[in-house]
Amino acid sequence: MSNQHIGVVGLAVMGKNLALNIESRGYSVSVFNRSPEKTEQFLQEAEGKKVVGTYSIEEFVASLEKPRKILLMVKAGKPTDATIESLLPHLDKGDILIDGGNTFFKDTQRRNKQLAESGIHFIGTGVSGGEEGALKGPSIMPGGQKEAHELVKPILEAISAKVDGEACTTYIGPDGAGHYVKMVHNGIEYGDMQLICEAYSILKHVLGLNAQELHEVFAEWNNGELDSYLIEITADIFTKMDEETGKPLVDVILDTAGQKGTGKWTSQSSLDLGVPLPVITESVFARFISAMKEERVKASQTLSGPAIQNFTGDKKELIEAIRKALYMSKILSYAQGFAQMRAASEEYDWNLQYGEIAMIFRGGCIIRAAFLQKIKEAYDLDPKLANLLFDPYFKEIVENYQGALREVIALAINNGIPVPTFSSALAYYDSYRSERLPANLLQAQRDYFGAHTYQRVDKEGIFHTDWMEK
Amino acid sequence: MSNQHIGVVGLAVMGKNLALNIESRGYSVSVFNRSPEKTEQFLQEAEGKKVVGTYSIEEFVASLEKPRKILLMVKAGKPTDATIESLLPHLDKGDILIDGGNTFFKDTQRRNKQLAESGIHFIGTGVSGGEEGALKGPSIMPGGQKEAHELVKPILEAISAKVDGEACTTYIGPDGAGHYVKMVHNGIEYGDMQLICEAYSILKHVLGLNAQELHEVFAEWNNGELDSYLIEITADIFTKMDEETGKPLVDVILDTAGQKGTGKWTSQSSLDLGVPLPVITESVFARFISAMKEERVKASQTLSGPAIQNFTGDKKELIEAIRKALYMSKILSYAQGFAQMRAASEEYDWNLQYGEIAMIFRGGCIIRAAFLQKIKEAYDLDPKLANLLFDPYFKEIVENYQGALREVIALAINNGIPVPTFSSALAYYDSYRSERLPANLLQAQRDYFGAHTYQRVDKEGIFHTDWMEK
Repeated sequence: MSNQHIGVVGLAVMGKNLALNIESRGYSVSVFNRSPEKTEQFLQEAEGKKVVGTYSIEEFVASLEKPRKILLMVKAGKPTDATIESLLPHLDKGDILIDGGNTFFKDTQRRNKQLAESGIHFIGTGVSGGEEGALKGPSIMPGGQKEAHELVKPILEAISAKVDGEACTTYIGPDGAGHYVKMVHNGIEYGDMQLICEAYSILKHVLGLNAQELHEVFAEWNNGELDSYLIEITADIFTKMDEETGKPLVDVILDTAGQKGTGKWTSQSSLDLGVPLPVITESVFARFISAMKEERVKASQTLSGPAIQNFTGDKKELIEAIRKALYMSKILSYAQGFAQMRAASEEYDWNLQYGEIAMIFRGGCIIRAAFLQKIKEAYDLDPKLANLLFDPYFKEIVENYQGALREVIALAINNGIPVPTFSSALAYYDSYRSERLPANLLQAQRDYFGAHTYQRVDKEGIFHTDWMEK
Repeated sequence: MSNQHIGVVGLAVMGKNLALNIESRGYSVSVFNRSPEKTEQFLQEAEGKKVVGTYSIEEFVASLEKPRKILLMVKAGKPTDATIESLLPHLDKGDILIDGGNTFFKDTQRRNKQLAESGIHFIGTGVSGGEEGALKGPSIMPGGQKEAHELVKPILEAISAKVDGEACTTYIGPDGAGHYVKMVHNGIEYGDMQLICEAYSILKHVLGLNAQELHEVFAEWNNGELDSYLIEITADIFTKMDEETGKPLVDVILDTAGQKGTGKWTSQSSLDLGVPLPVITESVFARFISAMKEERVKASQTLSGPAIQNFTGDKKELIEAIRKALYMSKILSYAQGFAQMRAASEEYDWNLQYGEIAMIFRGGCIIRAAFLQKIKEAYDLDPKLANLLFDPYFKEIVENYQGALREVIALAINNGIPVPTFSSALAYYDSYRSERLPANLLQAQRDYFGAHTYQRVDKEGIFHTDWMEK
């Protein structure tokens, strides 16, 4: 009874599916849940499998081989702290706690540090792929003590998604690195989704495409550079009909987006680090605005805009321009997200390996996409790449596609169609490639009203001018 | 010796100037500074004035009439906590501490609560106007116990800026309300400055205006709807010549903007509250990008953009379109900032009075502007106004000016000139007035991969679809 390979605490759907996934790879699993009924129920579901149910923390801990490996799949926040506290008196030095929840990385940093004082290893790991991924193979981003990771690595590799035979998991870095990378992953997911929505909006309103035509466009896009899970499911979504109304289901869905906060965290962290993250942040704001449905309905009745102009150009050409605009914006969003990871890696001393991170995003997770291979190759070419835009492949794409992006934004603007992320992606591109920005005027203003000083273009030093002196 | 009206702790420039301002209104002032030399020095500067220097906390506290009024002008953060701790043993119930620093509002909430347990009142107050404002009349935003505010109100009114005879200070609300409103004020200031920079950038690069012409444009703008301190000093800045090079000084200033963090706080708070704040947030990001000078210089050598096109249209018309674009964007930025204050007021139970806040912004502070009167009038008409865009005056402006904003953004985009805040202002307008946004697709995606459920347009309820089922 005391030699199960790993224990899982928390039998909500993610915990259950990960336990089943682990068991299916040949490991024996102990499980524990605060409500014994859930344990009972799970044991019935897992009948005939190497799953041992336990009904007290003592029994649970005693059922595990040493050093113990315990996967926590409880709610992020206080429940995680409470679970750790209940486990702690029963653990021995060298035991390994693995938090697989959607935990804020600073909580993981704190727990890792506190537990290290008792000799307990703590691994905070991002798990992406939803319920199905948990069962069949998620993308896994573990952070914590490297030596502890070595001990759980075989299990994580066994249960993770595989792409071309390679496991979609790798050691990310110390303490909160794994949860941080998962957070940025989610932020990037927000960006991808909003960009797709803006492309959809133009296709629908300017070109008047119906659901079947939208399906065909996205299905075609999924065969090219945009090949990705999110484009694939978008194509699929347009084929689903609502049984009640006979309309495409997407058309009867209310346009108020929900969220669980990881996009917000990503933006807030970018602000703390001083890294520009406009595409993801505009995506978060777009969800906020979508949620203000009542205000919007009222505003739509009073605030006018231009009427949609009848599009008289070549439809195919415009669809191709929108595709290019979407791909270029996506590249700019990833350039921002990876630049943020670089800043975080420096700030927190994580030594992140960006190419490997791109590799493990290729399978299991929501943002899985063919183009992540290109990001991997970019970091292979230059592991210290300051920004993806300096990579030859990405440089060529953005240079060639910028005309399309400019054209599509201008078209949307003239038709009154909101394109916050397309616009912010382009503004980032044009700002980033500007040797000189108008911030010289801004510094003059700051020095004028607040004596904040400025630097000069022609010599070193800090200067202040009495601007009011004539 | 024990009957000075008010005490000031901290004799850096803001503390000194506020002490002198208070004294000049007929109040006697005790001062204390950790380094006695600073106190000595200040006493020399203030010779002949009703200023009493003290050299220990005991002496300082003993020199004040009861209930004591003590203005803290020390560094925000730990120094403020340390100062409060050193004062606390010497204070009596009913004494009033006033924190005039640039303090994060959550720190003010915490201190207000903690000190209330000892019967000490704590007022956190925003003070805007820089060094000169502190001396001659700042805009003052006090938050804390209303009964304590009543006792310091005469002093705050006496030292504040005046517009049409009205003092630019009013009771903002409980605990952190004053520092919160000051924070949003600063965020709005970030937005205003970046919007001006984008207008400047188009005037300079597309129209090729020189410093003298830029001066004339901004000076003229300052006579109309844009009448404001920041437009005024911008006009002024273009007249200042660099003695060394003979060039306009603004042209030799390095284009890397600094910041002190209040813009960042405003954006982070908007993310916490779920309120879209794109213009201010893009302004913060624009400062970040400006600071990446080395990367930008490198990128400018490798990433291409369109060449600036020779402008062949009517110059005057374009200048007028840019003016309209700037004013409309400014209105949208304030609409966002005031909507955020409304959300904060609800979240923290502050009962903010938006019209009064607009009134006290009219003088003393950096964002002082004629159009704040219009905001005041909007809230007079409807104190519960959900968004400034519903006010008849602002509605008319944005409807009439949107064509100019669309035209200017398209022009900038086609010329490769980054306009992140102009673009995000318009995207906000077009999103806000959209009865239907493409977030229905986003909800379909979330339900597809994560079973996050959705609502329908045609009936109440929460729905989930098995999208893969054919």
